[in-house]
Amino acid sequence: MTPPNATVAAQTIPLPPGFRAHSGAAGLRERGDDVFVVVNDGPSPASSAVFTRSLFAGPSVVLSRANAASGRARGVVVVAKNANVATGEQGMADAREVLDHAAAAVGAAPEEMLIASTGVIGRRYPMDLLRTHLDGLAGAGFDADAVALATAMMTTDTHPKTARVEVTTTTGGTAEIVGIAKGVGMVEPDMATMIAVLFTDAAVEPGVLDSAFRAAVDETFNCLSVDTDTSTSDTAIALASGAGDPVGEVELREAFEAICLDLTRQLARDGEGATKLLTVEVTGARDRAQAKRVAKAILNSPLVKTAVHGADPNWGRVAMAIGKCHDDTDIDPERVRIVFGDLETYPAFPGEAELERLTEIMRAEEVTIAVDLGVESGAGVADGACTVYGCDLSREYISINADYTT
Amino acid sequence: MTPPNATVAAQTIPLPPGFRAHSGAAGLRERGDDVFVVVNDGPSPASSAVFTRSLFAGPSVVLSRANAASGRARGVVVVAKNANVATGEQGMADAREVLDHAAAAVGAAPEEMLIASTGVIGRRYPMDLLRTHLDGLAGAGFDADAVALATAMMTTDTHPKTARVEVTTTTGGTAEIVGIAKGVGMVEPDMATMIAVLFTDAAVEPGVLDSAFRAAVDETFNCLSVDTDTSTSDTAIALASGAGDPVGEVELREAFEAICLDLTRQLARDGEGATKLLTVEVTGARDRAQAKRVAKAILNSPLVKTAVHGADPNWGRVAMAIGKCHDDTDIDPERVRIVFGDLETYPAFPGEAELERLTEIMRAEEVTIAVDLGVESGAGVADGACTVYGCDLSREYISINADYTT
Repeated sequence: MTPPNATVAAQTIPLPPGFRAHSGAAGLRERGDDVFVVVNDGPSPASSAVFTRSLFAGPSVVLSRANAASGRARGVVVVAKNANVATGEQGMADAREVLDHAAAAVGAAPEEMLIASTGVIGRRYPMDLLRTHLDGLAGAGFDADAVALATAMMTTDTHPKTARVEVTTTTGGTAEIVGIAKGVGMVEPDMATMIAVLFTDAAVEPGVLDSAFRAAVDETFNCLSVDTDTSTSDTAIALASGAGDPVGEVELREAFEAICLDLTRQLARDGEGATKLLTVEVTGARDRAQAKRVAKAILNSPLVKTAVHGADPNWGRVAMAIGKCHDDTDIDPERVRIVFGDLETYPAFPGEAELERLTEIMRAEEVTIAVDLGVESGAGVADGACTVYGCDLSREYISINADYTT
Repeated sequence: MTPPNATVAAQTIPLPPGFRAHSGAAGLRERGDDVFVVVNDGPSPASSAVFTRSLFAGPSVVLSRANAASGRARGVVVVAKNANVATGEQGMADAREVLDHAAAAVGAAPEEMLIASTGVIGRRYPMDLLRTHLDGLAGAGFDADAVALATAMMTTDTHPKTARVEVTTTTGGTAEIVGIAKGVGMVEPDMATMIAVLFTDAAVEPGVLDSAFRAAVDETFNCLSVDTDTSTSDTAIALASGAGDPVGEVELREAFEAICLDLTRQLARDGEGATKLLTVEVTGARDRAQAKRVAKAILNSPLVKTAVHGADPNWGRVAMAIGKCHDDTDIDPERVRIVFGDLETYPAFPGEAELERLTEIMRAEEVTIAVDLGVESGAGVADGACTVYGCDLSREYISINADYTT
């Protein structure tokens, strides 16, 4: 699906009515903002949040998971450059203190606030810097826009990711949704993803917000993989202020899907060291789970990724990747079809001319591999399908990650 | 376990009594041998073979699986540079023809022969070249040694892998086992592995040979991963000639384990682009399966692999990798212990001095990460354990694989 009305990042994207935000430099990184605080002052705040399933989820995830349960979270503080994960009991105490200071600065209760952190694992927060910065916020301007927030939380991202859609309200007007996201390495979300925050002025009940948001995340962020590594800090949050009019559940879900898909594609395209967006579409599967399993096997294969990087017409590696799903015994290689762009490679068995065309297709900035599994079902061919998003694997990925902390 | 009496490749390693082999250049690659044929002329031939579980297993695997069922295979033909996989019905016909020609050359029946192929997927064999070469074999010398065979089947390997052990027979004498292996990319064996062939002159029944070989493969080749991609052509074969004396089952299994471990470590160390051998030892797991799952999550994490490559003391990535096993809910992060070499990093929380020592440890040619999960069991701490073998991830891996076929 192509986002119908999503727009890419402009220079400035104000948050929707009902929200105000601060972005600042506490000194966690050498230069630039590294902390932001958003508060939802709308008349009917609602929230939804999904988190990493990592066993090593950090204190930020633990605290946010508890505070998000009400569906009425009123704000979020995000700390970049340090994930505060695997830091023991002191790490939990530090996270609580950051939450306390941030809540005090915006006049909320700590249990109304969420917290997300991203960066190095296994290092304690520089608490002196964070304390000083957050205590100075009470009188500060809260006028940061979405681009500023998206920039403040970047780690190895090369540009801020923002998206905006409008959605029709039940009264015939429009509400807006603004989303920000970060995370281009250690990205294979499972229940949740990197860090993403959606803001909307729509008036919506927490239960409706939650189901629409979870459905959208499942189709988008959860179909993203840069490198198969799942962050300990993945957090995706949706906040609604109610400063605008009500929005129907279907409209909200479609709008969320559009904006999350836009952000997902931006994240994949900016994957660490990536030069291309790689999309894998699997159809004809027994069910969506099977389609996703096969699609991920292709998307995550380092040999497929390096072939895409080098535009090497080595389509056989896609067959190899499908073959890895050996517990899916209902997949019959003789019924499988593999297509790059509009060129069938299997079972067409390309000759020299087709291999040259395949090279051309693989040289594009966006490479799409479509696989039909042709699984037989009682009613003919099964219709399970899933599309996943990733990127190629380049030398630059190694360069970025071989000396990340030093 | 360290191989007690395995030796690394010498200049020449003769096959054990009972075997004779030909290695030659059919012209599949620009220069060097690319085909070999081994025949077991011993008085009591026995064989065992395990294969890839890939859904896209090639015709060589399909034919060998059938011919290996007897436990009495008498020889093997190996073709390098072309895997003959995803080649449709013609590919199967081609494989049968190669098997026929090879069998005729050594005076065996086709169904007594095994076949293994390795190389590009999705291309047909150059049958003219293979036919001509194999038909010329009848009068050729069959005097190739193990190093020549190991060399003939290399693809991106930088050197041939051979190993040799002696094993005490039931009569107090010695039998020998010579092994060869290849495969340094597309390597995450599941039921089997890359290509490996073990030759022994020991007299052993097929059933004993089979159980000893499978046990050894499970502890060694199946604990190897270079890049998480599983070959469509993985094949591991053991051939016994019976030209020597009988060997006990325990002695045979221990000797097989030693030789397979030696070859496994050689393959890992020569992983595509690798500069280091990475060993991950997990203990304190519920069972071996859980230990292996966690060990593989660490071994296969591109972020752990790149940190090891750059000697970046980013130990937190090991915590991240463990956290990915989120279905293992009996793993409690507060009971986990992470050790690099002899340096505990979690929950020790290294300071600056320890991080410098960690950098030193990670600069070595061999990096060992030990993780104790501390899973509680009824009887105290669980004792499931597994050790796995891999390598770092370097820019060179990308270079090798971005233009493999062109």
